[in-house]
Formats: sequence, structure tokens, C-alpha cells
Amino acid sequence: MSSLVWVCVTDFFTYETTKSVVVKSWSVGIINRIVQLLIITYFVGWVFIHEKAYQSIDTGIESSVMTKVKGFGYHHNQVMDVADYVFPQQGAGVFCIMTKVIITQNQFQGTCKELGWRFKCKTDEDCHTHFGSILANGVITGTCINSTNDNEMGQCEINGWCPAENDQVKIEPMQDVNNFTIFIKNSIRFPLFDVTRGNFPSSMTSEQIKSCTYHPENNPFCPIFRVGDILNYTGQSVSDLAEKGGEIGINIQWRCNLDLDIENCVPEYSFTRLDAPFAKNAVSKGYNFRFAKYFKTENGTEFRTLHKAYAIRFDVMVTGNAGKFDTIPTLINLVAAFTSVGLGTVLCDVILLNFLKGADQYKAKKFEEVSEAQIEAYLAQSPGSQLSLKPGIKSSYDSGAVSLDMTDQPDLATTTTI
Amino acid sequence: MSSLVWVCVTDFFTYETTKSVVVKSWSVGIINRIVQLLIITYFVGWVFIHEKAYQSIDTGIESSVMTKVKGFGYHHNQVMDVADYVFPQQGAGVFCIMTKVIITQNQFQGTCKELGWRFKCKTDEDCHTHFGSILANGVITGTCINSTNDNEMGQCEINGWCPAENDQVKIEPMQDVNNFTIFIKNSIRFPLFDVTRGNFPSSMTSEQIKSCTYHPENNPFCPIFRVGDILNYTGQSVSDLAEKGGEIGINIQWRCNLDLDIENCVPEYSFTRLDAPFAKNAVSKGYNFRFAKYFKTENGTEFRTLHKAYAIRFDVMVTGNAGKFDTIPTLINLVAAFTSVGLGTVLCDVILLNFLKGADQYKAKKFEEVSEAQIEAYLAQSPGSQLSLKPGIKSSYDSGAVSLDMTDQPDLATTTTI
Amino acid sequence: MSSLVWVCVTDFFTYETTKSVVVKSWSVGIINRIVQLLIITYFVGWVFIHEKAYQSIDTGIESSVMTKVKGFGYHHNQVMDVADYVFPQQGAGVFCIMTKVIITQNQFQGTCKELGWRFKCKTDEDCHTHFGSILANGVITGTCINSTNDNEMGQCEINGWCPAENDQVKIEPMQDVNNFTIFIKNSIRFPLFDVTRGNFPSSMTSEQIKSCTYHPENNPFCPIFRVGDILNYTGQSVSDLAEKGGEIGINIQWRCNLDLDIENCVPEYSFTRLDAPFAKNAVSKGYNFRFAKYFKTENGTEFRTLHKAYAIRFDVMVTGNAGKFDTIPTLINLVAAFTSVGLGTVLCDVILLNFLKGADQYKAKKFEEVSEAQIEAYLAQSPGSQLSLKPGIKSSYDSGAVSLDMTDQPDLATTTTI
Repeated sequence: MSSLVWVCVTDFFTYETTKSVVVKSWSVGIINRIVQLLIITYFVGWVFIHEKAYQSIDTGIESSVMTKVKGFGYHHNQVMDVADYVFPQQGAGVFCIMTKVIITQNQFQGTCKELGWRFKCKTDEDCHTHFGSILANGVITGTCINSTNDNEMGQCEINGWCPAENDQVKIEPMQDVNNFTIFIKNSIRFPLFDVTRGNFPSSMTSEQIKSCTYHPENNPFCPIFRVGDILNYTGQSVSDLAEKGGEIGINIQWRCNLDLDIENCVPEYSFTRLDAPFAKNAVSKGYNFRFAKYFKTENGTEFRTLHKAYAIRFDVMVTGNAGKFDTIPTLINLVAAFTSVGLGTVLCDVILLNFLKGADQYKAKKFEEVSEAQIEAYLAQSPGSQLSLKPGIKSSYDSGAVSLDMTDQPDLATTTTI
Repeated sequence: MSSLVWVCVTDFFTYETTKSVVVKSWSVGIINRIVQLLIITYFVGWVFIHEKAYQSIDTGIESSVMTKVKGFGYHHNQVMDVADYVFPQQGAGVFCIMTKVIITQNQFQGTCKELGWRFKCKTDEDCHTHFGSILANGVITGTCINSTNDNEMGQCEINGWCPAENDQVKIEPMQDVNNFTIFIKNSIRFPLFDVTRGNFPSSMTSEQIKSCTYHPENNPFCPIFRVGDILNYTGQSVSDLAEKGGEIGINIQWRCNLDLDIENCVPEYSFTRLDAPFAKNAVSKGYNFRFAKYFKTENGTEFRTLHKAYAIRFDVMVTGNAGKFDTIPTLINLVAAFTSVGLGTVLCDVILLNFLKGADQYKAKKFEEVSEAQIEAYLAQSPGSQLSLKPGIKSSYDSGAVSLDMTDQPDLATTTTI
Repeated sequence: MSSLVWVCVTDFFTYETTKSVVVKSWSVGIINRIVQLLIITYFVGWVFIHEKAYQSIDTGIESSVMTKVKGFGYHHNQVMDVADYVFPQQGAGVFCIMTKVIITQNQFQGTCKELGWRFKCKTDEDCHTHFGSILANGVITGTCINSTNDNEMGQCEINGWCPAENDQVKIEPMQDVNNFTIFIKNSIRFPLFDVTRGNFPSSMTSEQIKSCTYHPENNPFCPIFRVGDILNYTGQSVSDLAEKGGEIGINIQWRCNLDLDIENCVPEYSFTRLDAPFAKNAVSKGYNFRFAKYFKTENGTEFRTLHKAYAIRFDVMVTGNAGKFDTIPTLINLVAAFTSVGLGTVLCDVILLNFLKGADQYKAKKFEEVSEAQIEAYLAQSPGSQLSLKPGIKSSYDSGAVSLDMTDQPDLATTTTI
């Protein structure tokens, strides 16, 4: 019993290694080493150095953006400041700078005539076709309000805020927007590595920040952006944007290699026109929205001033990832690398066993063959003693993989002795 | 010296390949091929074709959403338009459509009685229990304002905007919300591949966009959504939502295979009720918020109109990822595939060496054995010449893995000749 | 022809397994098993159990946040409620609680003198240096408005909303903010697994939610947060924040192991001061923004009240990922594990073939050698019959890897018999 345990233990503490054939051939040896070199170069150069496959990556960047616009503009013969032209006012990461506004003063609830060619009419029936229209400024009542002169066309009547807005008036946009500045404060965190960073270096003094302007080369870490510069970087003309409005993306990209000094983890800014994918569609060019200011008359009736605001909307979008050495991806990629080096032998085997002079001899060396026929023949001869193997069987020189015919080794089990 | 270098060089340019045993057995051969076939099928079919393991994936989608609501509704005998019922007005990705509003007119700072059963009182002491209450409409002063009739209960006094809001009034919600339309403009970018897409094809004309309505099958790329349709898709009744408010998620999913034509990279819309996880909790059903409009009397005193707005909030959430062929994941998965095919031999070895007829013979073919005892015996015999190995040792026919007893090979080094 | 097919088929259904050398040596056997044990332990313990490498991970969490603030504060001798101090009012995931406001009443468009030492002047020329300044409250006209007394300095004139704001006044901030409560409703979804969760358990009753307050240990799932507590958790003093404003991050982290019960998928809250990375910079401490309320005089002139609001901004940031068993990562990591176990042989081979007693004998067992010289010699002898290999070649006892000299095996092909 105890000897059986001992046998098991000795059996367990054995070491099994593959038996190898060493081919001393210049041609296949050189090919082998070149293939291995290529594979190693690929893994070291591309996978490990370039793609940093030894790092684990945190893509779940947490970000908080605070913005502050400064500047003054003339519009409607008024000086407009931040409280007038920025929406929303709280300094969010998505904000609009109003560049043109069509104001419809003193709207009261009631009925009045709609404006525009689309709502011209001769009879009430003409207006019935507009029932439920969402292009009017109110609910179409179905009445055609005729002008005093009978020859002229009337206009359909609407129920809602009156007078109706006329957004076809020509208004000079606020070109001063070019000189406005945007201050962006962005703090990010990579939760996986618990790393927190701000978008300007902590060595920057208050004076430096107040006086600088962002420039991609000269001042890449200044958090103050001139609107005119941003529009330039996106290749847009300020006059077009100020007229129709538009959407600009300010992308802050954080690509941090945390294996290096943390001070190298800095933001990179880029600017795009977000409505670019829709440039070909004629619809919905630009960007505008409506809002109202509400007032009360002395007797308590509410009225409003409707504003159709054309604005440049800025979306501060923060993206990024951080990488740091981690054992798991390193290990998996190392194993992949080692195994890939091993796969080089597949190619070399193909060359060695097929295209080299003496391929068959190499085959004979590499492959030992054992067939059911041999085993059966052997078993037939010594049926009783499977365990007391004759040494003969073990030295059976097989005929290699190329020997397709078994018949030239008629009595293998017995004649293996030589 | 130079010959030593030469020896090293020749040694280096050798090729080492494993020595293999080829088993010509139908049973194990068929099992081997079937196992290999299964593994290859799994990798090709599932890993590569279905899961696209050959692609690198960009999950860091950048997105910008612009929305625009259109439609008119009757509420409080007024016609409400977009400027009245949409919050915030700038067309953000998260916006509310107000469906019901409880208006408390002309609130001035001062003291007045709180409303509601909760704040009924007989004495001042009854009100002291409410000190610091956040359920009141102002700061509880601790005074009980008795009604004229002594039998009736009084109400606690509050300090704040007076009169207090009574939000228990029954108000008919604005059912017209059903017919409102939402226009969604979404432009996305996959930064890894620098691919930019819009949520409607660039071939769509202005007329098509203006006249279409989204339908999952008939019109899946129209960016105009009817609110009633959206509520239908989420299985919600508009009357319930208009009454209590609610939160609706509009999910735009981009799943792009950039190995195909970029025109196949299109959005997919889905709609969910976001407060569904809280359906079982009785608290905080629906969605409402308060805002105020501020006015001034002639003499400059500020007063306000408080609005308790019940609204349907829409969250446009953009998710997605893009995949594109990349060598690194391909390689790693290919290596995993090849290695896995190799792992098939583990199974076959188990069968071959244990369950097949003649298993021991196969063992003897597969395993050569060398033991410390042998080596020591050999070294004892020729202690001085380790390097000038006799050829004899190399042809030592080991007794296979099954030979557990060394003693039947007493003088191995010398008798290997046979 | 058919026999050729038959040959191909038999050839195909063969099984090839590596020929192995089993080394029965205690030292290398134990090393082998220890190395294997270490590798297996690493993979099981770290890779699989700790890092859950058997799961596929969904990092694209979809989230919707609704917030509601409650509480009353005294400021400027007024009671302020939610409609007064929360911006924006819709209950978004990013919101501000105003803690101090500097009010500039009754601003009309016009010209007036700028305030502050920076804009002191003696002559108009002094003011010209300020042309285009964005630090003023309006557009610098270039005129110096002298005070009545000639000895005193004048102030530069501005064009814009007048009178100019004086933000140097000392105002007591609203300390009551400490007692305000924030209710956070967060519903999330993992699109990959289609799992939806809310931030408080569905078993929580309305009463429980209304009466509880979040506490990291005692009440970790209560969705009601006291502002004072939040500031405590971030280590900030409320008096400092109320005075200057600040940015607080409320992070809701979802780390879900979906292999376990879904009820274990619960949020974890953490609180940080978001402007911490900028603590060293003297600039832009705190958080403030300006907004205006617009009024109209009886005769229709618009005027406004400017508010410079110092606020605590709360960013509710939702992050998280979910993992669930998936075959692909499991398989790849299993293959990596198996292959890594195999890599243990590399170490053992180095020991076996170099440092063990009888290393050369082990080498001789492991490596069979075949050289071009041998093959050529053989081919020279039997040039015509490559296919009818003599058995002799197959039993060529190579001299092992250490035999660098071929000359001691002069007629290999013929003398292999022994």
C-alpha cells in the first residue's frame, strides 16, 4: 500500500519535456532565426512599445467643466454683457453665445394675423389647409383676415402670442463675438488609478492666466480661448456663424501614460464644427432657439418679449484614457508573443519537410510512426503481458511519415531488434 | 578563438523542432480531427465572425445633441408655444416639455398661513413641531394663525413668499403634447478612427426632413419624432405622463462596423421610461420642478409668480462603439485559436494513452524515460569524460512511462546496444 | 486513383503528438511542480478570482440623473426657496445652489463711471489704456469722469448697463445651505447585458425615503443627502464654500458583478472637491456666475437687476461597469493560463540542461541531431531511391546537441546499426 503511494509520488515529481530534433542546416536555421526576429521585432516594436500592450487602460474618465465668457458686444444699439448673451448663465460645459437676436416686443395672448407668404389667403377655406400647422406662430383659427384693399391677399388668423414674430427682418449680427474670451476650467479623474488632473499647470500664476491666450504651439496650456481663434481653427468664418449660428466642439483630450511623470499628463485641445456631417443637407443650417422674457402690466396682465436667438453653441467635450503598467495585459501579451515565436516553427517545418533537399530524411527524423497494425501485431504476440514490455517495442524504428506502406515492415514487433 | 565563434554561430543557426509521434489509428485520428474541427468552428464562427474579435473597438464615442421642439398647446386658457413650455430653451440633449403647471400669482415676501392638513394647528405649540420643516412653503415661524371661527383649526404661519402655493388644485394637463414634434440633430465622432457621422443621411433633402416622422420600420432615419409615438414605444399612456410628469430616455445607439461601407454606420433609436426602476417605490412618482418669474411693482418691490411645472423630461442618450480591423487583437486571438487547437491534443492524449487498446504501447512510443539512477550509473562508469559522450548513451532505449522499476535495466549505459 | 484517395484519407485521420522525455529526477521534478503551482496559483488567484478575467465587461453605462433640492435660507433679509437659489431649476445632474448674491438693482443702458481702483484716472488718456478691457462692467468710452473735488481721482466712463456693479461689497453668505437636502434619483442601464438599476432599492417605502439621510455606513442607500454632510465628506468648510462658491463632485459608482444576485448591484457614493487640482493656483478660486432679471418701466424701457451669484455647484457623475461571465475572455485567459504553465518548462529545461548533474546526458536524451552533412552523405549513397528509405537512416543515433564535431560519426548512414 505505502509502496503504491510512493510510486504515485515519484510519478508525480517527474518532469516531462518534449523531445526535440535539432536540425543543423544553414538554410532552415537562418530562416528560423529571421522569422523569430521578425516576430520578436513586431511584438517589441509595435505591440509593446507603440501600442503599450503592457498597460491596463482606464477609459472611464470623469470630468467636470466650468466655463466663463468675457467680453462686450454692441447689438440693437445696446451694449450686451455676459448676463445678456450667454445661455445658460451657470458656466456649464455646453453653452451658447448669442450673436443675433430677433426681438418681438410686447406679445399678449389673443388673435392676430400670421405673417409670411405661406399664410396668405383669400378665403377662410385657404386657411383651413393650415390647421395644425407647426410652422405658424400660433394655432391657426381658420379665419382669413382680409386687408383693407380687396385686391390684396389677406393673412390667416392665429390664436396665441400676438403680434406674430417676423423673423425675416435683416439684423446685423454682433461681430464683436470674435473678441470674446472663454475661460475653461476642466478637472478630470481616472477612477481606476485615482489620478486627478487640471487643465492648466499648478505652477501657472494668477497673472499668467489672466494675460495669456491659448495658442496651439506658443501657449498650449493657457485656458483662455479667443472665440475668433477657435472659429479660425475650425476653418469657419465668423460672419457666417454670427449670422446663422452654429455648433462648435471644443475637444479636450487627455492621453496619459501614467508610467511616466504625472506632469506629462496634459490636455490637448482640438476644435471642430459639430454640424459638419449635416453640411450637405439644406435643412437646419446654423443654430437658433427661442426664449421669452415675461412682464406684467400694471393691472396684472402677463405679456412677454419673444427672442429668436441665433447663437454659436460650444460643446466642451472631454475624452481621454490613461494607461499604466499592469501584470495581466503584460502577461497575456507576453504569452501571446512567446507562443507566436513558437508559431514560427510552423513555417520552418513546412520548408524543412517539403522544400529542403533531403526533406524525407528530415521527416523520418521528426516523425516516428506507430500504427494500429503494429500495436495489434504486438499484442497478438504477447497477449498476457502488457505490463512487462519487451524492450524491443521501444526501439521500433518507425518508417517516418512518408512511409505509406506498412508491408515493408512485415513483422515489426519481432524484428525491431536489429 | 575564431573557431569558438564559428561554433557559436553554427550553433545559433540551427533549427529546433519537436519530435513527434504519428499515430496511425482510425479511432484516435478521427477523434483528433473532430476535436480540431469543433475548436476551429468555435473560433471562426463565434470568436471571429460573431464577436468580431479581429477588430479593435472604440467605445469612447463623442457626441453632440441638438434638439428642437415644435407644436402648440392650450393650457390655462392660453396658447403655449415652445418658448413657454420647453426648459431649457437652448435645445440641449436633456430637456423638459411642461405638460401641467400650477401657478401661484403675485407672491411677495412676508408672512402668511401655510396650507394643507399637515400644518393645521390649535396652538402655537402645535406649530413648533414643524420647526425646520422642508415640506412647508416657507420658514415656520411657530405661530398658529387661527381661523375666525373658534371651532375650526388654524394653520401654522410661514415666513417667505406669500401667499403659499396650493399644489392640490386640480388642473387639466396639456394633452396637446401628444402632437408635439421633436427634431433631434446628433453628430458623433469615433476619435480612435476619426470617423464623423450625423443621425440622418446627407442625401436627405430639406423637404424630406420637414415632412417625415420617425417610424422604426418605415422611416428609421427620420430625425423628427412625434411625442405621442415616443410615449407609445415606451408603453406609457400620455394622460398619465402629462398629469404627473415623467422621464423618457431616447437612446441613440451607434454600432458601426467600419470594415464595411461607412454608409452602414447608422443610428438606431430606442425609447425607455427612465424612472422604471423606481416603479415599485411610491415616492417621487413623475417629474416636476418649480421656477419663478420675477416682476417689480411701480415702487420697485420685487414679486414673483411661482410655477410648479409637471413635465416630461427627455434624455437623449447617445451610446455606441465602432470596430475596425486591427492587427493586435487579430493576432492575439489567432494565437489563442492556434494554441487552443493544440489543446485538443490534451484530450486525445488522454484517450490514446489510457482508453485505447494498446495504450501502454502508445505510452512507450510517446515517452522516453531517463532517470537520475541511469545518469548516475553512467557517470559512475565514465567519470572523467562527460563531454566525450559515448554514442551508447544516446540510444538508451528507455522503458517508457510505465516502467516504474529501474532494476530491470541494471547496467543501462553499457547494455543499451542490444 | 481510388487507392491514392484512400492513402490521403488514412493520412488525414492520423494523430500527431509530441514525443516526450520523462525525466525521473527529484530535483527537477519538484522544481517543475513548484513552478507550475506558482503559475496556476497566480492565474486562479489573481487573474481569475481577483481580476475576474472570465467576465466580459460593459463600461458603456447609460445614466439619467434627476435631482431635487429642499430647504429655506435667509439672504438679503428675504427667505429664499428652491425657485430662488437653484440653477438650473429643472433638476439636472449638474446644478448650483446659490449661497451669496451681489445684486445691482435697476440697471439701464447708458453711460456711467466704472468703479474700482483699477479704473481711477486723472485725464482721458489714462482711460485710453483700458480700451477693450474685459475687466470693466461695460465698454470703456475713454472719458475720465472727474469727481467734484479736483484733488481726488476720477473714474473712467463706461457704456453699458448702468450703474456699474460693485462686487467688493461685503455680504453675509447664506449659511443655511448646510441644512439643505438633495434628493438624487439615478437610474442606470448596462446596454450590453440590458440590466437596469435604480439608486435606491425598490423595497424602500415612500416614508423611509422621506425620513432618511444618507450616511456611508448607517444608511448607504438613502438617496437624500444633507449638503453639510457632503461638504464634511470632502473636508471642506461650509463657511469658505458659501463665501466664495465651489465645485463639489458627487460620484455614483456602480460596480456590478452580474454573476451574483442582481440585488448586489448597488451604487457607492463618494464626494470630492472638483476644483482641488487648481488649489495651488491663486486664480479663479471658488465659483460664481452672473445672471440678470429683466423688467420694463411703464413706458416700455427695459431695465434689469444684475446678480453676481456665488454658488456651490454639484456635479453628479455616474461611472461604473458591469461584468458577467463570457466565454471569449474566459477562453483566451484559459489558453493564456495553459500556455503559461507550459512556459514553466522553459525554466526547467534551463535547469535540467545546464545545472543538473548529468546535464549532458539529459541533453543527449532531449535533443536528436540531424545535420545537412548527414543528409547529404546519405543522399550521396542512395541517390536514386529517396522514397524507399532504408531503415538505417531512421535509427541514426545522433550525437546530441553537445556533439559539435561531426567527424566522429564518419559513415553515419551505414553504421547506424550498432
